[in-house]
Amino acid sequence: MTTTIEGIAASRGYAIAEAFILEAPDTSFHKTKVEDPEAEKSRFQKAVTSAKQELEAIKAKTLKEQGEENAEIFSAHLLVLEDPELLDAVYAKVTEETMNAEAALTEVSDMYVTMFEGMDNEYMKERASDIRDVSTRVLHHLLGVTHTSLQDIATETIVFAEDLTPSDTAQLNRDYTLGFVTNIGGRTSHSAIMARSLELPAVVGTKEATTRVQHGDQVIVDGFEGIVIINPDENQLREYEKKQKAFEAQKAEWEKLVNESSVTADGKHVELAANIGTPEDMTGVQSHGAEGIGLYRTEFLYMGRNELPDEEEQFNAYRSVVEPMNGKPVVIRTLDIGGDKELPYLDLPEEMNPFLGYRAIRLCLEETDMFRVQLRALLRASAYGNLKIMFPMVATLEEFREAKALLDEERQKLKSEGTDVSDDIEVGIMVEIPATAVHADIFAKEVDFFSIGTNDLIQYTLAVDRMSEKVSHLYQPYHPAVLRLVQQVITAAHNEGKWAGMCGEMAGEETAIPLLLGLGLDEFSMSATSVLPARSLIRSLSVEKMERLAAEALRKSTAEEVAELVREKVTSDE
Amino acid sequence: MTTTIEGIAASRGYAIAEAFILEAPDTSFHKTKVEDPEAEKSRFQKAVTSAKQELEAIKAKTLKEQGEENAEIFSAHLLVLEDPELLDAVYAKVTEETMNAEAALTEVSDMYVTMFEGMDNEYMKERASDIRDVSTRVLHHLLGVTHTSLQDIATETIVFAEDLTPSDTAQLNRDYTLGFVTNIGGRTSHSAIMARSLELPAVVGTKEATTRVQHGDQVIVDGFEGIVIINPDENQLREYEKKQKAFEAQKAEWEKLVNESSVTADGKHVELAANIGTPEDMTGVQSHGAEGIGLYRTEFLYMGRNELPDEEEQFNAYRSVVEPMNGKPVVIRTLDIGGDKELPYLDLPEEMNPFLGYRAIRLCLEETDMFRVQLRALLRASAYGNLKIMFPMVATLEEFREAKALLDEERQKLKSEGTDVSDDIEVGIMVEIPATAVHADIFAKEVDFFSIGTNDLIQYTLAVDRMSEKVSHLYQPYHPAVLRLVQQVITAAHNEGKWAGMCGEMAGEETAIPLLLGLGLDEFSMSATSVLPARSLIRSLSVEKMERLAAEALRKSTAEEVAELVREKVTSDE
Repeated sequence: MTTTIEGIAASRGYAIAEAFILEAPDTSFHKTKVEDPEAEKSRFQKAVTSAKQELEAIKAKTLKEQGEENAEIFSAHLLVLEDPELLDAVYAKVTEETMNAEAALTEVSDMYVTMFEGMDNEYMKERASDIRDVSTRVLHHLLGVTHTSLQDIATETIVFAEDLTPSDTAQLNRDYTLGFVTNIGGRTSHSAIMARSLELPAVVGTKEATTRVQHGDQVIVDGFEGIVIINPDENQLREYEKKQKAFEAQKAEWEKLVNESSVTADGKHVELAANIGTPEDMTGVQSHGAEGIGLYRTEFLYMGRNELPDEEEQFNAYRSVVEPMNGKPVVIRTLDIGGDKELPYLDLPEEMNPFLGYRAIRLCLEETDMFRVQLRALLRASAYGNLKIMFPMVATLEEFREAKALLDEERQKLKSEGTDVSDDIEVGIMVEIPATAVHADIFAKEVDFFSIGTNDLIQYTLAVDRMSEKVSHLYQPYHPAVLRLVQQVITAAHNEGKWAGMCGEMAGEETAIPLLLGLGLDEFSMSATSVLPARSLIRSLSVEKMERLAAEALRKSTAEEVAELVREKVTSDE
Repeated sequence: MTTTIEGIAASRGYAIAEAFILEAPDTSFHKTKVEDPEAEKSRFQKAVTSAKQELEAIKAKTLKEQGEENAEIFSAHLLVLEDPELLDAVYAKVTEETMNAEAALTEVSDMYVTMFEGMDNEYMKERASDIRDVSTRVLHHLLGVTHTSLQDIATETIVFAEDLTPSDTAQLNRDYTLGFVTNIGGRTSHSAIMARSLELPAVVGTKEATTRVQHGDQVIVDGFEGIVIINPDENQLREYEKKQKAFEAQKAEWEKLVNESSVTADGKHVELAANIGTPEDMTGVQSHGAEGIGLYRTEFLYMGRNELPDEEEQFNAYRSVVEPMNGKPVVIRTLDIGGDKELPYLDLPEEMNPFLGYRAIRLCLEETDMFRVQLRALLRASAYGNLKIMFPMVATLEEFREAKALLDEERQKLKSEGTDVSDDIEVGIMVEIPATAVHADIFAKEVDFFSIGTNDLIQYTLAVDRMSEKVSHLYQPYHPAVLRLVQQVITAAHNEGKWAGMCGEMAGEETAIPLLLGLGLDEFSMSATSVLPARSLIRSLSVEKMERLAAEALRKSTAEEVAELVREKVTSDE
């Protein structure tokens, strides 16, 4: 019987294959008293060692195949296994209460998980989930059970799971996994992000897909509409095979644009750049034909470790991105830590509203020793290509001037030391705070460029944390007020002969691109996988028409009206 | 020997009097085993009962003398003493571990305090401080010691304390206390707010004032400059007596304006209104000559209790404010709960960034049953005066339309029930979200008025939580971008023939008033104690000159330049 399940479209594409249901193994055990606590302790230590080795291997594989951002989670897991407080608590239960290791581990990790979850705060919840994932892994080793590994899949399948953990996706066999379906999660959940980065169609948040499918059922995944069809009938199969072919043809068309330039139908060139997190992401940049790097987030250099990266390490990381780009622009953002990203070795204050707090340039202007190291590394790397420096979270002109002054000081020092430094490094700012957008005309006199960080700009402009489920409907990229701020920034830049780019998710969205083109945006920076579809779209559009479209959009009353306008006009124009 | 101590100027004015050092009594005790746990349990219960009676009395006194907002804290304290979990934990220690009540109470409350403080989150810290305050009170009763009460002061004094708790300020003898000096706290701490509302000069955050002063020392408190002089010399005494006289004369001048209108030197009338929290605040409104109520916060009706206030209770509260205003405008803001204000009976989600979350109109549009009760109460009260309704935290036109539709539905229902409802209630919005300010021209077509809520607007516009110490320097009311948004809102209102007011703290500030006058603001709503100084200032200013000043301010690059400009021009103009 055919069953159709609706969920959230998390990654586009179509897949037709057999269902594979990922199930957790039986980890039940009895709590017992042990005769020889020392032997039990060493049995536990062995399980920890095996779990560590396994994690090291997964981390290495992930780093190689998926880049540092995804590997980061396993560094966090390894840190859990090195936490003396947690280990000592388990030892104490084993030796003092002669408890078996399974029970001791479970009691300790349950205590931590309850404590962190009880705090009911997103950071702590993530810590809770790390601890749960890691303790399950150690428990598997203690019990000698094996978790079904996605690595073992050897026929084409669509994976169904309650949710996919980072451990799961890291082990996924990419030759045979054609798509994902999960019960929980939203568009920004780990599995959704992974699906998009692997370019696998996925539907998440189906609530109950795993209970309605059988191992081996034929399944269609529609990652555009968020639909999963179990045991489709002949008509549906034919329909989706057709859709799949059309999409494959479309992708093949996109592929042809890899070396083409991003020029509109009426001849205006814009730059399509990629956002990256680590030098490992460079493969994707090249294969998707990005014309530059619009945002190199340097946080990953600082995260998942116990001390600050030194100047040499940073220099090497920056150089390894700048050099292979052969003179194409590379915008490197200075450290944007704090807020939702913490560093164990910086004693950051816990804040009630971290998004409105001590982070990014605010922190760097206080932790100037740390900041100067990054600036020196950036300056040295500038000799190897077209490096531009961008300061995040700038709200006042004073902050920009202060940061620029530190940069100039380090430039002078390096020069007097005889070190090679480029003489024409552009220095710009992320525009992600409403005040900065409103005040862009004044900033434009002093900065070399703007890059609009829409993810944050939208959050602040609408006073909405999009991670907060109850208000995420107010995260509206097409709110006319957001478009007005974007327009102000672009106009302010152009009036001073500067350029304006955008490096938020919005820059790669189909609905946004026509509007942004019409508003005069010079550079669009997005995830590498979005570059070719964006190029294809841009080549079909006329700037002149998009200018009229944008002008009309700015007069609309609601986000819904703006989106409707784009749907109507861009579809009917072509 | 003369000692000068610097701190934070928390409340203006000068005071010269003897020092009174508020010290905590000795509450040391031995942990012992008790013979008769049941008797010990009943001894503890008696102490709890006495503490409750004391709290009820303080709460009643506070309610009468300082209004509901200040009394609220004692409701929270009473809830602690009714918490069965906490009481049972103490009983358990007494009966099962035969511990004396002092030790049992201290261990239990320490556990709670450590737990809540460990969470390192502002809400929880406040809970920790409540529990500490309450358990100290019960301990006093157990030990039979008396806390020095500020009630007993019978000569003119300046109170020095580590900090003043709400229990302290509630017991303060207002006839003899001339000023405060505290070691800790900032401009927004409880003691600072209390000092301003009591119009007592105060200096807070002196770090060590209590250790440098002796009981009975002569002291000068300069609440303008944040200076405390211990044992001043003759010259200083003469100088401050002169300053004090001048300020008293100034205040006497202000007093004369209580029945005057707020008209500029060149004849423009603006409205000076007061912000209130409860009907009890009406005395201050009348005695300070406010021309209306620009913000009636309705949260206090909902807080410090275990269930929602019903329609009748709300109707009575609103009517008791609207009626005595005799046709003068009363802007009542619908419930702005959530964010930093929680209600125990609404199961609100814990959020990572509560200021960017589920609160105010966002919550009311989901909890429509609750919201409709408030709207009905407001509509019924509208028959008794000039009531205006204001929705908080509106970010999109859809939200305003939805709220308005609910209001219209309830209006129709009431009318068809034959209930009296005013036919011309103005319905407006708080402008406190950047998008709303940027989009004000569109909103102005549908709302009847705007009231700019600068406290939040500044926070969102600059992406700064001013409670976060590390970034509070970025909370800049005079950032030119903030002024531009204010201007946009006022212009948008006037273009549609509507009025624009301001109900944030900025509206009462000396530096802001000239600018706001120049930007065309129609209504200034502030704490009642600021009304007369504001009126005096406004009567000395020329709108024409202030318009030129505001235009110049809008072209400045930084907040500092704007403040400097006002200092220069407004001082030299007079």
